[in-house]
Amino acid sequence: MKTAIIFILENYADWEGAYLMSQLNQNPAWEVKTASLKKEIKSIGGLRTKVDYLLSEIPANIDLFVMIGGNAWHLENQVLVDKINEFLSQNVTVGAICGAVDFLAKNGLLAQYKHTGNSVYLWQDFTMYQNSEEFVEVQAIRDKNLITANGTAALDFTELVLSAVEFDTADNIEKTIYMYRFGYYAYCEKYGNPYL
Amino acid sequence: MKTAIIFILENYADWEGAYLMSQLNQNPAWEVKTASLKKEIKSIGGLRTKVDYLLSEIPANIDLFVMIGGNAWHLENQVLVDKINEFLSQNVTVGAICGAVDFLAKNGLLAQYKHTGNSVYLWQDFTMYQNSEEFVEVQAIRDKNLITANGTAALDFTELVLSAVEFDTADNIEKTIYMYRFGYYAYCEKYGNPYL
Repeated sequence: MKTAIIFILENYADWEGAYLMSQLNQNPAWEVKTASLKKEIKSIGGLRTKVDYLLSEIPANIDLFVMIGGNAWHLENQVLVDKINEFLSQNVTVGAICGAVDFLAKNGLLAQYKHTGNSVYLWQDFTMYQNSEEFVEVQAIRDKNLITANGTAALDFTELVLSAVEFDTADNIEKTIYMYRFGYYAYCEKYGNPYL
Repeated sequence: MKTAIIFILENYADWEGAYLMSQLNQNPAWEVKTASLKKEIKSIGGLRTKVDYLLSEIPANIDLFVMIGGNAWHLENQVLVDKINEFLSQNVTVGAICGAVDFLAKNGLLAQYKHTGNSVYLWQDFTMYQNSEEFVEVQAIRDKNLITANGTAALDFTELVLSAVEFDTADNIEKTIYMYRFGYYAYCEKYGNPYL
């Protein structure tokens, strides 16, 4: 069983992890667990969420660590920084979208990775962010084991993360994303009716 | 304060309500509350969710009632049928997406409404579903106060529901949906950078 940890904070963005979590958790080979700094948080959309693990309880052996954006990433938390550093250096696939990328930038965790995020202008005062020349103006990008994305890129982010963890064949991942991006009728036109 | 009730069941589809709930709940004029048959449920994606209201606790005066799809809509529940009927006849805006539309079809609640859903073929044995000629093969459709959609139509559904409750100007709703459908960079090309 492979484990994905979805790290969320108070006021997390409902839409950013929704496609990814549901794809992963529908596969019997994968299990999705949430982690946060509190045992109960609320999403931007008002969803009261019971969290599976506190930061200190996150299992050591995981296969994917994903940080979902939201309005609470202006925090200082060295334990979280160390944890992310540990996953990155152990070659665990790490994903960060929207506000979560701000946290990586602020703490120097984007060094040696091409990356994207909501906007590089937001990071001008971050002294530990030293590689703005590696900010790429795209919806989402993967470099080695790190995937980053802006907050309007839920599906692009999902596609790159699923591909990074070899969730399915490239063809199947592309088809799934196409279905959710363009809808059932456009999917049928391109690939045929999946239910016939 | 306007109230939106998001009705979810065990194994609800994370992605189907995510955009809609977050748009509504970020507006100080709106409050999003969840309702279900149990006080705690889990989404398809593994999100443990604490529910605000049981079915019997749903306030009488609400402005929007939305049923999110998932894998548990093969239920029988006359109290829920009566509740939906009540909202429809009181002209409350009602939304149903994916599996939730199956429930409406099975219980004759689509009568007198043009509608869509995952597939009309799934409803062939539903004796109370009598208006298959009003099934429209589109991602989402609004007829009077009922909005229906298939499970790949989260954004189309969001757009029609927001428009039905006059959440914002038609222009602003269209722009918001464009941003999430095509992403930040495509948005900037069409409408200019929203942060400048």
